[in-house]
Amino acid sequence: MVAPAMTMIHLEDMENIALGGAFLGTGGGGDPYIGKLMARQAIAANGPVKVIDVETLPDDALVVPVAMMGAPTVMLEKLPQGGEALSALESLQNYLGRKADAVFCIEAGGLNSTIPIAVAASAGLPIIDGDGMGRAFPELQMVSMTMHQIAACPMVMADEKGNSLVLNTVDNLSTEKFARVITVEMGGAGLIALYPMSGAQAKQSILKGSMSLINAIGRIIHEEQSANRNPADKLSRELKGIRIFEGRVKDVERRTEGGFARGKCSIEGLGKDQGQELRLHFQNEFLLAETPEGEPRAMTPDLICLLDLETGQPITTEQMRYGFRIIVFGLPCNPQWRSKHGLELVGPGYFGYDKEYRPIEELAS
Amino acid sequence: MVAPAMTMIHLEDMENIALGGAFLGTGGGGDPYIGKLMARQAIAANGPVKVIDVETLPDDALVVPVAMMGAPTVMLEKLPQGGEALSALESLQNYLGRKADAVFCIEAGGLNSTIPIAVAASAGLPIIDGDGMGRAFPELQMVSMTMHQIAACPMVMADEKGNSLVLNTVDNLSTEKFARVITVEMGGAGLIALYPMSGAQAKQSILKGSMSLINAIGRIIHEEQSANRNPADKLSRELKGIRIFEGRVKDVERRTEGGFARGKCSIEGLGKDQGQELRLHFQNEFLLAETPEGEPRAMTPDLICLLDLETGQPITTEQMRYGFRIIVFGLPCNPQWRSKHGLELVGPGYFGYDKEYRPIEELAS
Repeated sequence: MVAPAMTMIHLEDMENIALGGAFLGTGGGGDPYIGKLMARQAIAANGPVKVIDVETLPDDALVVPVAMMGAPTVMLEKLPQGGEALSALESLQNYLGRKADAVFCIEAGGLNSTIPIAVAASAGLPIIDGDGMGRAFPELQMVSMTMHQIAACPMVMADEKGNSLVLNTVDNLSTEKFARVITVEMGGAGLIALYPMSGAQAKQSILKGSMSLINAIGRIIHEEQSANRNPADKLSRELKGIRIFEGRVKDVERRTEGGFARGKCSIEGLGKDQGQELRLHFQNEFLLAETPEGEPRAMTPDLICLLDLETGQPITTEQMRYGFRIIVFGLPCNPQWRSKHGLELVGPGYFGYDKEYRPIEELAS
Repeated sequence: MVAPAMTMIHLEDMENIALGGAFLGTGGGGDPYIGKLMARQAIAANGPVKVIDVETLPDDALVVPVAMMGAPTVMLEKLPQGGEALSALESLQNYLGRKADAVFCIEAGGLNSTIPIAVAASAGLPIIDGDGMGRAFPELQMVSMTMHQIAACPMVMADEKGNSLVLNTVDNLSTEKFARVITVEMGGAGLIALYPMSGAQAKQSILKGSMSLINAIGRIIHEEQSANRNPADKLSRELKGIRIFEGRVKDVERRTEGGFARGKCSIEGLGKDQGQELRLHFQNEFLLAETPEGEPRAMTPDLICLLDLETGQPITTEQMRYGFRIIVFGLPCNPQWRSKHGLELVGPGYFGYDKEYRPIEELAS
């Protein structure tokens, strides 16, 4: 899908961005409603946010993604104040002795596609049209920057009480491990500023166009809903998505452990899938869809996105409940995740699923 | 006991310091043997270390204690390289943009009464004759500095792999909580530099004379051992110590959890204590000695120190094994720990023992 490039984010754009972010978040990335409120508040107070193409940045610019880290379950109960994400960025700026020239989204999903907008508005900075995942993933080394040997550190973590930490670790997997236990100690979620990088590094590593794509997806969902059509068909056509399954949630197992929301859910088929069952496994995000016999239908790093069967509303792992009637979508991931290094970082094996990765196009044929 | 003031620490002093540190460490503070090796190595390479009275420091001096944090069990298996403690200090200096003028021991016990000597030798700094506890305690907010409203942060933690973190927390208990989970993630132990303070703050808060006291205790143990006498009698006289119990270890329960070595042990009486039993509870350090009926014989913050019944060698919680024949000593703590604030920080209630604090002199009478 070629999405028209955004140049500004106004108050009224936040609805589409939250919707599109919830869809691309593949069930995770936090609650888009909270992120939308934060961003709206910041834009109302400080004016709209400029969206820039990463190529327009000078090579020596300083670029920093900001995000919330933790289990979405907790984020729902621990409403972030806009100031914390800004204070994470400011602490990192103090540590580096230099102001950032732009921020961006570490992932294209839910809360983390809207928090950087709130920070950009508050700090008077532009936001880059791009992100580090092209979707949402649960761990912070799972970004295109890691593929390009860009360090997550120095990284700053901050919480709402006023605690802040600066991490300098030997590699990005270590950053994740330290940051995760700190997140748990912060009560389950914290605000982070990390991967400080040059304009040159950003041009090399960022997955381009995600803010525009999120906005376009949100618009489709919104327009189709307004016309009383389920957005599934149009999204399917526009995104070359694959409708994997339709059914009703019959069981959800969910636990918050080690700073993640982990679990699985079973869906019994409706319509043409009547009599069949699909199982979804998640760690913040949906990572594996398989039959009860263990035949994969879609697997990470490809995207598994859920829409409400009636309203077409994107559904997060947190919202999912018994009785929900849903459409399960599969979307091909960014091609770089299918490389050897990419699959080491985010393939099914990393998450402990004993399966060889197979692209969704192949599984569907 | 009035210990003669040390002015220099030479290679040959390390034997006494390690012995005295093991005694005052009340079972914890890490293995003195490793710390002795580190300090000897650093002194051999860089020359002896100057010991100074805190009163000789300018009020605007920068003073920093350095230490190892973690479960002593792990420290035994994870031999610290001298360079890590120095690198924690150097990272803190970089963060503060200023060199330290002196180091000191955060606690008067085992490894942590010798690591600062190694750092002082390597960095060419003097060491202050004093510490923050007058004994060893398991948590890092349990220092005289907390009683004087001195912040533990900014604090640096470093491990042998090259990871380092800077903490800025809202209070010293929060510092402990964050640092503890980071210690666990570091594999159970890390090197720390914290409580950066001015000379004026150091004069106000440091418990004076501990290095000289440790050295004097070590000398007594060493001299008595050389004369084939058990040092218990002389230590008892000199330190106004109370011999609580003599017996043989019949059971030790020990587990490493949440970054601590926790457990208890039972001792069956020998000699005049024949037919009786004493139970010792520890969290890195010995914290409570009681009868099987729950009658306390000594409790934190008073010191509970163990000596081998034959050799007079101090025994740590880590070394303790079935069959060891031991003398259990009680020593009155520094008077400030008996204040209301002191008991809130380190009294039996903080550690979860359902007992009102009673001074050892009272329990023994």
